[in-house]
Amino acid sequence: MRGVVMYAPGDVRVEERTDPTIVEPTDAVIRVTASCVCGSDLHPYRGVEPLGEHPQPMGHEYVGVVTEIGDQVSTVKVGDFVVGSFWASDNTCDICRTGYQSHCVHRVLMGTIGTQAEYARIPLADGTLVATPGQPEADLVPHLLAASDVLGTGWFAAVAAEAGPGKTVVVVGDGAVGLLGILAAKQLGAERIIAMSRHADRQALARHFGATDIVEERGNDGVAKIKELTDGLGAHSVIEAVGTQESMNQAIRATRPGGHVGFVGVSHDVSLEGGELFMSGVHLHGGPAPVRQFLPDLIQLIWDRKIDPGTVFDLTLPLDQADEAYRAMDERRATKVMLTA
Amino acid sequence: MRGVVMYAPGDVRVEERTDPTIVEPTDAVIRVTASCVCGSDLHPYRGVEPLGEHPQPMGHEYVGVVTEIGDQVSTVKVGDFVVGSFWASDNTCDICRTGYQSHCVHRVLMGTIGTQAEYARIPLADGTLVATPGQPEADLVPHLLAASDVLGTGWFAAVAAEAGPGKTVVVVGDGAVGLLGILAAKQLGAERIIAMSRHADRQALARHFGATDIVEERGNDGVAKIKELTDGLGAHSVIEAVGTQESMNQAIRATRPGGHVGFVGVSHDVSLEGGELFMSGVHLHGGPAPVRQFLPDLIQLIWDRKIDPGTVFDLTLPLDQADEAYRAMDERRATKVMLTA
Repeated sequence: MRGVVMYAPGDVRVEERTDPTIVEPTDAVIRVTASCVCGSDLHPYRGVEPLGEHPQPMGHEYVGVVTEIGDQVSTVKVGDFVVGSFWASDNTCDICRTGYQSHCVHRVLMGTIGTQAEYARIPLADGTLVATPGQPEADLVPHLLAASDVLGTGWFAAVAAEAGPGKTVVVVGDGAVGLLGILAAKQLGAERIIAMSRHADRQALARHFGATDIVEERGNDGVAKIKELTDGLGAHSVIEAVGTQESMNQAIRATRPGGHVGFVGVSHDVSLEGGELFMSGVHLHGGPAPVRQFLPDLIQLIWDRKIDPGTVFDLTLPLDQADEAYRAMDERRATKVMLTA
Repeated sequence: MRGVVMYAPGDVRVEERTDPTIVEPTDAVIRVTASCVCGSDLHPYRGVEPLGEHPQPMGHEYVGVVTEIGDQVSTVKVGDFVVGSFWASDNTCDICRTGYQSHCVHRVLMGTIGTQAEYARIPLADGTLVATPGQPEADLVPHLLAASDVLGTGWFAAVAAEAGPGKTVVVVGDGAVGLLGILAAKQLGAERIIAMSRHADRQALARHFGATDIVEERGNDGVAKIKELTDGLGAHSVIEAVGTQESMNQAIRATRPGGHVGFVGVSHDVSLEGGELFMSGVHLHGGPAPVRQFLPDLIQLIWDRKIDPGTVFDLTLPLDQADEAYRAMDERRATKVMLTA
């Protein structure tokens, strides 16, 4: 089969790889209908993070059709259209049962397997995959694919930030995750949603997903603007979807005492000063999103056409043009690129 | 009147100071029945924190009898026995109304006024002071005094750590706040309470307040021991009551993914690595405790003799011997010293 591998920063190729097979009786194999390039895939592409192995199979977001299942798989069957998370999880351990499947004691990072490919082996299929109510119409595929990571991650950030009725929610970061954090906050009933963005196209998407206000200022100027909009107090809920020192400081400082920061941007060289965090009085929660917790509900919302998270895909390319997909995202010509089989 | 002032690290004196009077119509003046020395008072005493002014009036914990009230004070009257928090708060602003009185938009730090004295001015008396149901019997005074800070702070830590039924709670720090965090976790219904302590006398107090297990190891050895006691997962709830880099790391690492860290040790030179916090999946919340939120309930529990937090006072001295009180705590001859008028 054909699959994407990264040889070195900037060097992404599509080449022939071994067809995946059932290794463990809890595995499934899927024919990948669509996958995509994640902001975190750009970290090794830009050389800011080392490659796990060399060459590294790429990709951890996926939807597809089950082609084979192991002897112990019982909740999905051959032919099912499925969505899975970027962490494979058993969904039965003590950690999974509290909703933290991304920290499952048996978790497997799908990025080590690579779903930017024609086929993929999915470990712990029963705990990882969720079948859609039937075969989806073609226009639903991007939305279902978004649920696999960016929507699930934005949703977790909004839940961690305790977005809800009566709340003012600030979203730091206008990438796909931040934009879908806006969608999530809106669905969760937030009263006011302030998107921090200085790009016209993303501001338009932010408003499409439910943002009521846009703040273009960044850093402490951005914080001052948020304070100005919230009677000097700061927001109740802040979603952090970047992962830099500046964005974390901005998120914490824009939150009122007793408020909640949900941080899902993968941290790079971030250090939080204890004294400032202590005096801030905020709640801080985040990390790799337990997307599996939210998948059944998110799939239903998409199936019922109540949300359209796939709108974040502004470029679709065939798998064989993965190198161009990475370039387009790296050069910010695209927010999020879908790869089709 | 007589009051405690600090001239320099190690130099605490009791001297004649101006009698406090009503300055704002929302003030009250109290005759201090008892005050005490806080772990945080030792920071300037040891020179690890600069003095606010020079000489600095000391003390922020207090119980006493109202001797005078301003024109706008309506919830306490002359003669009432009152307990107040170490932050004066209006208890009406948007932040107070969510239970974060320690971040009140009009807050005043009592430590800048100094309650280790015969009398003290209490700003925002209506929002700060809570009257007891009547004049307390003498043996209740230490317990009521504890509510002013160490009990309220330990209680907040337990609430922030979401201690409750079915939970395993770890307490990092065996000072007065940590010990009363144990009492709080017990009252909140925690199933198992693991105290981290290597001092026999404090271990005994920890068990008295409700600890079910003692762990003597510290740092990563301590974390390994907690993992061993919790099926390799870590605790649901961890109270951090020290404020050092080691104690914060220990607290975060001893918590399971999705669990809660309540941190109330005043941070000194603490820096949290973003990547580790991200991957930990814990909830982090803490800071200066909104004691005022809990005071009515804590006073009632004490009045009904259901809790005995004043047991943490292992030395009582008259105000005039404040220098010896500081020395005894600094040299760890006492856990917590009460000063009486």
